[in-house]
Amino acid sequence: MKKTIAIDMDNVLVDIEINWIDKYEEAYGIRISKEAMRGIPEDAAFPDPVAARELVYQPGFFLNAPIMDGAYEALIALQERYDIYIVSAAMEFPNSLKEKHDWLAKHLPFISWRNIVLCGDKSIIGTDLLIDDHVKNLDPFKGESILFTAGHNIHIDRHTRVNNWAEVLDLLLPESVIK
Amino acid sequence: MKKTIAIDMDNVLVDIEINWIDKYEEAYGIRISKEAMRGIPEDAAFPDPVAARELVYQPGFFLNAPIMDGAYEALIALQERYDIYIVSAAMEFPNSLKEKHDWLAKHLPFISWRNIVLCGDKSIIGTDLLIDDHVKNLDPFKGESILFTAGHNIHIDRHTRVNNWAEVLDLLLPESVIK
Repeated sequence: MKKTIAIDMDNVLVDIEINWIDKYEEAYGIRISKEAMRGIPEDAAFPDPVAARELVYQPGFFLNAPIMDGAYEALIALQERYDIYIVSAAMEFPNSLKEKHDWLAKHLPFISWRNIVLCGDKSIIGTDLLIDDHVKNLDPFKGESILFTAGHNIHIDRHTRVNNWAEVLDLLLPESVIK
Repeated sequence: MKKTIAIDMDNVLVDIEINWIDKYEEAYGIRISKEAMRGIPEDAAFPDPVAARELVYQPGFFLNAPIMDGAYEALIALQERYDIYIVSAAMEFPNSLKEKHDWLAKHLPFISWRNIVLCGDKSIIGTDLLIDDHVKNLDPFKGESILFTAGHNIHIDRHTRVNNWAEVLDLLLPESVIK
């Protein structure tokens, strides 16, 4: 039987940092750098964190976000060896639920609806592995935890770290030739 | 630490049989009995199963469904002893995602967004217990499985059966006095 992997969306499959930077610039005319997000919560990197936070609730915020470099090819390769579940803590943003589903249908159409989980707390997810950028999800996880680097988590050292999708493949498919 | 229970929505928290009967009557003027659903898939109980199936995709189908008798009081009682997660295989119907969230906010407002899971396949749900009406969800479940009676599952005998919410309390809170 294949091992099961839960894969987070924002900051793992979805480049939410660039999306947030783009959307803030469109709304307020100021562009911050991705480096400004290093070591702090994303919203704290913007001149007006409250305004930045409000953007997340706007229709289209999640739907139109770009895919992370290498994610599509990596998932194609990984699904040969693993059962992949997309697990997003989307329930905090009820208007994002349909957008999250539609984003996956657009960018990763080979992922079945059977393998999509939109939830709040991920502590009850019983997969063998979890790839996520948030320690609040990784810390209580009972399986093998993998921290995907995002600006806000650069100081964390208690989980196996991957910096990009090529490093995920190095870790989980060391014999792969697509890297 | 409290034990965790995953609780299904349709036919467990939501009286989807009566809802479907009502909606079919509104649309086509014919009312079937709940007894007509015994021992067969729900849609097969209607004069036109294809038309019945199409109703499920209509906006409002899930949002306006009634709550199952005794469910509210039972969850209030159960949450004293258990961590409750609502786990619905809603992903097959993407338009239902927001409706499922809103139904819970309306009928069970004490359930946090952190404890709601909208998914497809439930095999990766790692709670201690699962209350569900479908053997496709209960069979692969690794914890304690509880079959909630619905017309379509009356012939199943391989899971602990409960016929209503009073019987759930008998099983999980035998000392409870609210029954």
